[in-house]
Amino acid sequence: MKPSNIEVISADWIVPIETGEFDSNSGSNDVLSDHAIAIEDDIIIAIAPREQLLADYPNAKHTALAEHILAPGLINAHGHAAMTLMRGMADDYPLMEWLEQHIWPAEADLVSYEFVADGVELAIAEMLLSGTTCFTDMYFFPDATAQVTEKLGMRAQINFPILEAPSPWAENAGQYFEKGFALSDDFRHSPLVKIGFGPHAPYTVSDSSFERVAMLAEEMDLNIHVHLHETPSEIAASIEQYGVTPIERLNQLGVLSYRTQAVHMTQISDSVKDILVNTGTSVIHCPTSNLKLASGYCPVTELLSLGVPVGLGTDGAASNNTLNMFEAVRSAALQAKHISADASALPASQALYMATLGSAKALGIDNNVGSLRVGKQADIIAIDTRCPALQPLHSPISQLVYTDPASAVSHVWIAGKAKVVDRQLIDIDQQALLARCRQWRNRMR
Amino acid sequence: MKPSNIEVISADWIVPIETGEFDSNSGSNDVLSDHAIAIEDDIIIAIAPREQLLADYPNAKHTALAEHILAPGLINAHGHAAMTLMRGMADDYPLMEWLEQHIWPAEADLVSYEFVADGVELAIAEMLLSGTTCFTDMYFFPDATAQVTEKLGMRAQINFPILEAPSPWAENAGQYFEKGFALSDDFRHSPLVKIGFGPHAPYTVSDSSFERVAMLAEEMDLNIHVHLHETPSEIAASIEQYGVTPIERLNQLGVLSYRTQAVHMTQISDSVKDILVNTGTSVIHCPTSNLKLASGYCPVTELLSLGVPVGLGTDGAASNNTLNMFEAVRSAALQAKHISADASALPASQALYMATLGSAKALGIDNNVGSLRVGKQADIIAIDTRCPALQPLHSPISQLVYTDPASAVSHVWIAGKAKVVDRQLIDIDQQALLARCRQWRNRMR
Repeated sequence: MKPSNIEVISADWIVPIETGEFDSNSGSNDVLSDHAIAIEDDIIIAIAPREQLLADYPNAKHTALAEHILAPGLINAHGHAAMTLMRGMADDYPLMEWLEQHIWPAEADLVSYEFVADGVELAIAEMLLSGTTCFTDMYFFPDATAQVTEKLGMRAQINFPILEAPSPWAENAGQYFEKGFALSDDFRHSPLVKIGFGPHAPYTVSDSSFERVAMLAEEMDLNIHVHLHETPSEIAASIEQYGVTPIERLNQLGVLSYRTQAVHMTQISDSVKDILVNTGTSVIHCPTSNLKLASGYCPVTELLSLGVPVGLGTDGAASNNTLNMFEAVRSAALQAKHISADASALPASQALYMATLGSAKALGIDNNVGSLRVGKQADIIAIDTRCPALQPLHSPISQLVYTDPASAVSHVWIAGKAKVVDRQLIDIDQQALLARCRQWRNRMR
Repeated sequence: MKPSNIEVISADWIVPIETGEFDSNSGSNDVLSDHAIAIEDDIIIAIAPREQLLADYPNAKHTALAEHILAPGLINAHGHAAMTLMRGMADDYPLMEWLEQHIWPAEADLVSYEFVADGVELAIAEMLLSGTTCFTDMYFFPDATAQVTEKLGMRAQINFPILEAPSPWAENAGQYFEKGFALSDDFRHSPLVKIGFGPHAPYTVSDSSFERVAMLAEEMDLNIHVHLHETPSEIAASIEQYGVTPIERLNQLGVLSYRTQAVHMTQISDSVKDILVNTGTSVIHCPTSNLKLASGYCPVTELLSLGVPVGLGTDGAASNNTLNMFEAVRSAALQAKHISADASALPASQALYMATLGSAKALGIDNNVGSLRVGKQADIIAIDTRCPALQPLHSPISQLVYTDPASAVSHVWIAGKAKVVDRQLIDIDQQALLARCRQWRNRMR
């Protein structure tokens, strides 16, 4: 008899992302029918046909999800969670006008520990309800972000920002580093929250700060998360000021390695591809934010074929305006076809891979999460297909990628703990949270 | 005292689309706060501040929707409703391979009156639940489509297909016409269902059939709905076979007028724009289907600025794979920014206009529907903003366009009749419908 602190989740379909031999950057089309997953504490301990697994663990708690699809939780590899409070505050502007005229002035007025804590809780509520179990963040008051994330049992890589300019969180580059070190110390042993360096962008961070990041990331064994090659004008400005493109500059400064996540990466020439491949740098693709700010396009299919780890992100809600990763999956697949004038580009399985195991690989956590595999963390979502928009169900993977089933996410587990049950948040008082959001809206008017 | 068969719907925000002086192709940013709408039978009879309207109609039934947005029902200006049963059956193929290798063989095997009736009911369920109150259709067994649509109280323009090739519905062009005439007779007096001509496409319809359509549409006072300039290869093939582009050929055959709806319209040169403007032809933009099939892109911002009526459609679920018009609105806005490298292109209000009054104008029904205005049909939707993904609410129009709030649609009225209440379908037995969809899936395996 097996111990009884084991939970079994069964479903009509399981999309594990990774099964058996696996072509690492292209995703798997495998779907398991009438299977179940056994979880012990935070770990997946077995995946097998339903009847067999129920016989193996007769005393386990059994969650039976007929007509549901189980999949690994989605991993949102780039965002600014607190900016959910700025959702819809300023649309239809290009990046620099949007930042300089709208976002930065609002931030100078508003941003505080409390603002970030409430914005992050709102973001986590939205992400959990739409099937995301892990996110990456870069924003002021990362201590608030980390504390709320850990309290709510969400998984994250939280990158403390580094800029030269002052903000409500820090006065100068030195202070950003100092506060970041303290944060890194505080969360050194957290099972869910990983701290990283977040040098904001080539146009806001000096050479000496980038060099310090490069050196310390190595010493402290931390990742680096940086906006890079977001727009054509960023590249033109860098060439004018430094004589080289932003990625060439960062490469010269020693910032690029397998620890580094380059976010956006539009405007990619052959020499840029070489730098990415040679340094092992990951790319985070934010398809919807790139479209909305008219920033350009990241050629993900080519990067994936070159072996570059590519993750997928929503970016902040101020420039998207949703944290729904299923929307990002769909947007990525559709854009890739349009850009390459090839309807077979970025097929469904590869798009879904980018949002799960691809993101995990880009963040360096693919040994722990990103697919449903024995030994990995139990970060699992269930999608209820019993609604007109998801019927008939010819292909579970097609349904996940092309119908945007975020509103059909019924259950979410992170590290084996239930976070959403029957579409309801378990650890968040939604009504109280929305009331606080309305107060922020009134203050922002 | 006013009569008591009047209903008043109040909400925190109303997005009427059209108020006062109106720049006809650009949409309105107006939002009414704390207003209400009074409906008598199928007609909007008043829109005014909440307290005033409640005082004017003290005996009216009052539906009070706090924290909701009211908007006109969305109008899906192009689709193939029955093809919802083929959702996810064949993804990641270009148009002609998709049609010739996957869709046409499946249709030859499957399509029947019963298949179309069930597929259309599924499509209407999906459209109602996501805020669409009117759709345009072109598919075999349009008699089934029309009968189900009328029975369920949905609004539609249903175009009977005309092709040279045989199908399960008709053996030759002559029979398509004959059956279409009978259908047109049957629905001559329908308040909700309008019949139109649906010559399939330049590559499937002969010159003589197009000439017959042109002549009869005029005589019978019916619209014409045709796939046109969907892909580059369609244009190349036409130039090879006919010596002219498809739109030049249709213009020579007399098919183009204010009655004509040209669907897709990618590959638009200056001379194509002249033809559209000079003939008064409408364009139906299907942004997501064009991306998924990698067909190309319709330059909607330019067409709108030239005064061309532009409506918005999802296309069929086999090439999209959703009938969610909010997704189409978002997709259209994002694509327009990307294509023009201008983040201010197709701003939120104009994108929403395309899905409502723009579609109504393209279909020639803008006197009746497409905006919330006294004297128009009461086709109204309500969006419940009390969820994390729609908070905080800085701008109701931004929320409608950029967050894809389809899953937050709580109420739908068509011609004053409630079709969705508290997210539940009123006239459709959802469980029985989904059971029939599963049977179709099993037959299609």
